[in-house]
Amino acid sequence: MKTTILIHCPDQAGIISVTTNFIHQHKGNIIYLDQHVDKETNVFFMRLDSDFEDSNFPTETFKQEFQRELADRYNMQWSMHEAGVKPKMALFVSKYNHCLYDLLSRFNSSELEVDIPFIISNHPDLKPIADQFNIPYYHIPVTKDTKAEAETKQLELLNEYEVDFIVLARYMQIVSPKIISNFPNRIINIHHSFLPAFAGAKPYHAAFKRGVKIIGATSHYVTEELDAGPIIEQDVTTVTHANSIKDFIAKGRDLEKIVLSRAVKLHILRKTMVYNNKTVIFS
Amino acid sequence: MKTTILIHCPDQAGIISVTTNFIHQHKGNIIYLDQHVDKETNVFFMRLDSDFEDSNFPTETFKQEFQRELADRYNMQWSMHEAGVKPKMALFVSKYNHCLYDLLSRFNSSELEVDIPFIISNHPDLKPIADQFNIPYYHIPVTKDTKAEAETKQLELLNEYEVDFIVLARYMQIVSPKIISNFPNRIINIHHSFLPAFAGAKPYHAAFKRGVKIIGATSHYVTEELDAGPIIEQDVTTVTHANSIKDFIAKGRDLEKIVLSRAVKLHILRKTMVYNNKTVIFS
Amino acid sequence: MKTTILIHCPDQAGIISVTTNFIHQHKGNIIYLDQHVDKETNVFFMRLDSDFEDSNFPTETFKQEFQRELADRYNMQWSMHEAGVKPKMALFVSKYNHCLYDLLSRFNSSELEVDIPFIISNHPDLKPIADQFNIPYYHIPVTKDTKAEAETKQLELLNEYEVDFIVLARYMQIVSPKIISNFPNRIINIHHSFLPAFAGAKPYHAAFKRGVKIIGATSHYVTEELDAGPIIEQDVTTVTHANSIKDFIAKGRDLEKIVLSRAVKLHILRKTMVYNNKTVIFS
Amino acid sequence: MKTTILIHCPDQAGIISVTTNFIHQHKGNIIYLDQHVDKETNVFFMRLDSDFEDSNFPTETFKQEFQRELADRYNMQWSMHEAGVKPKMALFVSKYNHCLYDLLSRFNSSELEVDIPFIISNHPDLKPIADQFNIPYYHIPVTKDTKAEAETKQLELLNEYEVDFIVLARYMQIVSPKIISNFPNRIINIHHSFLPAFAGAKPYHAAFKRGVKIIGATSHYVTEELDAGPIIEQDVTTVTHANSIKDFIAKGRDLEKIVLSRAVKLHILRKTMVYNNKTVIFS
Repeated sequence: MKTTILIHCPDQAGIISVTTNFIHQHKGNIIYLDQHVDKETNVFFMRLDSDFEDSNFPTETFKQEFQRELADRYNMQWSMHEAGVKPKMALFVSKYNHCLYDLLSRFNSSELEVDIPFIISNHPDLKPIADQFNIPYYHIPVTKDTKAEAETKQLELLNEYEVDFIVLARYMQIVSPKIISNFPNRIINIHHSFLPAFAGAKPYHAAFKRGVKIIGATSHYVTEELDAGPIIEQDVTTVTHANSIKDFIAKGRDLEKIVLSRAVKLHILRKTMVYNNKTVIFS
Repeated sequence: MKTTILIHCPDQAGIISVTTNFIHQHKGNIIYLDQHVDKETNVFFMRLDSDFEDSNFPTETFKQEFQRELADRYNMQWSMHEAGVKPKMALFVSKYNHCLYDLLSRFNSSELEVDIPFIISNHPDLKPIADQFNIPYYHIPVTKDTKAEAETKQLELLNEYEVDFIVLARYMQIVSPKIISNFPNRIINIHHSFLPAFAGAKPYHAAFKRGVKIIGATSHYVTEELDAGPIIEQDVTTVTHANSIKDFIAKGRDLEKIVLSRAVKLHILRKTMVYNNKTVIFS
Repeated sequence: MKTTILIHCPDQAGIISVTTNFIHQHKGNIIYLDQHVDKETNVFFMRLDSDFEDSNFPTETFKQEFQRELADRYNMQWSMHEAGVKPKMALFVSKYNHCLYDLLSRFNSSELEVDIPFIISNHPDLKPIADQFNIPYYHIPVTKDTKAEAETKQLELLNEYEVDFIVLARYMQIVSPKIISNFPNRIINIHHSFLPAFAGAKPYHAAFKRGVKIIGATSHYVTEELDAGPIIEQDVTTVTHANSIKDFIAKGRDLEKIVLSRAVKLHILRKTMVYNNKTVIFS
Repeated sequence: MKTTILIHCPDQAGIISVTTNFIHQHKGNIIYLDQHVDKETNVFFMRLDSDFEDSNFPTETFKQEFQRELADRYNMQWSMHEAGVKPKMALFVSKYNHCLYDLLSRFNSSELEVDIPFIISNHPDLKPIADQFNIPYYHIPVTKDTKAEAETKQLELLNEYEVDFIVLARYMQIVSPKIISNFPNRIINIHHSFLPAFAGAKPYHAAFKRGVKIIGATSHYVTEELDAGPIIEQDVTTVTHANSIKDFIAKGRDLEKIVLSRAVKLHILRKTMVYNNKTVIFS
């Protein structure tokens, strides 16, 4: 059985040694180990890919012993994930289709190891694409008056389908604090600027006005503060005085697709850890 | 004789045709023409490299006729520059030496077609480098009390040596409004962030705190508003969670050098025009 | 009426001036002019976007006069293209679907101003995607024995639908010389390496073996010599020792999509000219 | 005492655990661990930064026990390096000065933790720069007739000063096989192309002729086969049809400087390991 273990705890001498020993004693072979120490906060992070010979690997016993012998002693926050279990990813969209098309075509080509139980949108426009790819599409309008009702419906769907994480694929609404608190570090947004520059609405217009020579896109976990969550991935492309706002938007679309899909892949592979509103991205 | 002509004026039909005609009639051959129309403000920009056969080319007559026949009629702002005349570039530095070393070694290799009459610094530290390259070095301390006096000395030197433009090669002081108004769009600064993100002091610290995955550097013309002038050139490089602030600074040094030198070269080649706090960068 | 005129001819003094004059005299306003002189071969290239006031613009007369007054005199190769006429783009694919998905989703979002009369493939696998997007799909198998027959069928379809240009979206067969000669500089291929490195088969395997730190993709016009045609667009991405060949392939897919779509857009906008097995790419 | 240990050996279960245990038992704290398994050849690589509390750390005893308990058992090739010991770096140059200036100004700013005992050149041209930075400069001409003699002199200097590694900062001669065999994976070259494209002489001319849209630079360890050694670092920059060969060379200079200095830094920090003519670059 292949597993990924994620750990963070106060840094102290010997953690790598006791942990790798523990894995070894339980007949696990460490395939990959990546670790990081945040020097400012003195926090230790580790990601361990291990392979356990035993086909009847006693997962529960292992977890209890890990908790008792390591986690309690070193004050670890940790989680363990078996390979081959596909997380459930919900997609939220509005009217822009490029990120949706990109994610669905990657999904269709088995590039993303997830299940997609449904797509939610505040508009009906992208239903044909959902139909094209045979994914259920729920049109949940969001207006001032229907906001609470919409949130309830969204949460019902998320619970019913036991969704693991949410991807906002250019969803043009602010996600409610309740949903955010139910999915901490499990809602991935794509913002169409090089954050923290041009947070908020119309970043391409703002970038054009400022006369920048490079534009960007940023994928981040959603927190209550708008466009201020932990950054997962960023990328940029050059622009010139000759480019119009329309050109910025067209160039940006390609950035948004690539940056969002990279962030989604990192999340699926459990290569992200969040601490202090920043991410550790394992290689 | 080779010349570069820079023009901007309200856009209207026929400008390219009458201007290229005018050059042609004066026995000039157009080597390169680049033009741009700002659609928002309806302003036309053009840069013309021409070669005039006549070795006794009557520059003054040509200029008078250009003014009368074209500039007055089309309401043009324009300037004409003979090739081979080296502009005079003053360098302002503080304690960081990487941009200074970079510019001086390019200068020594004839990569920059300028004269460097002097280096001004508010600290004595970099004098040995100036000596290494045989450039006069003026140590003009800047404190609260000596600010006015320092400005006077700086202006005296700038006037005495007939300086054409100033490069702030990591000069850690704010340049006085009087100097800025004497050198409009002729003071080039390098800011160690991807503007408009992280304007002001300690941008690498701010970038580190925000957890960005890409850092940048920006070269811009200095205006009275700090770090808000027209951007000439930007570039970026990737960082990871494993990079410390010290790593950010080290990676940033390379960016700063490259971005500043590119901006300086564009300015020397008269490939920049400024309008509406933005630059047109000709190719 | 808006038009784009493309010109190349031996360089000589006055071409820009006489051409812009000609446009002006025919009541055209030049919206954008970009020009280039190849110094080695002394060839002049120009691309002119013009707007003619007259709604009944006498295209044929204009063309005749242009030929007589300019083209004959300056030995110009030239073409004129009216805006709004969509070129017909045929797609050739095999089994990989990422470039196909990418182009079709851009097409569906009106990002590509073309008609797509059909998709040809030597395999049946991608028919469902063609169906998804309602594009006719012709399965034309290519084996040693059926090669000639396949070529005949392909040419029939290309003629019947009056195809303007062909995009090989990871088509894993060599296009026949006859088709190439019928579509000079009108067949766009995407090669999954940074050409001229790793031409031919299995470039990702070769790149992995060589231990490069950067991989690339190259879009080029197809000529008889394999992977040696004029390069339109290239891009690269970093790889590390930790990346497997599978990782190279996955990273490469994103490059291939972006690079191919950029090349296709440049071709559609008539921003490419070919000379001496190289391209001039207008801005 | 801080140390860096580099290990490679046939991969097998438990290596990380026994090694980290061993460090821990000797009162070492692991500061950073990075590891890699080459799946093709089944070779395990590890780099360990450790801090040993004991100020009188018994280095020799530790090394003997490491050899006996770990290296012999697991068939490890390994080395251990104490922090703070500066390696000795010899520079070989010809006439181009940009890489030399860049390395020396980084050295002067304490960016490179090395000693530079001398510079060797086959030309006298760059002596003034060596003088500027107070580094001994040996002019050793290399002609057909003096080749053997030059090699002898070079080796004498390398031995006399106990040089650890050599940097060819645009040295335009082929280094003799004898020197290469004396400095395996310890001679760093900068080649002015994106290898394996354009190996050999005049790569910018070849790139220009081929019409590439991106040019590169590659830093690699020198092996007997020209430009075919293990690649340490590569980077690229865009070019256009408007760029002349002279422009390629100017743009390339900046690439060469940056790429070479990055490779030199990686080597100094012992972040490179070589296997199968490829490098593992630790983070």
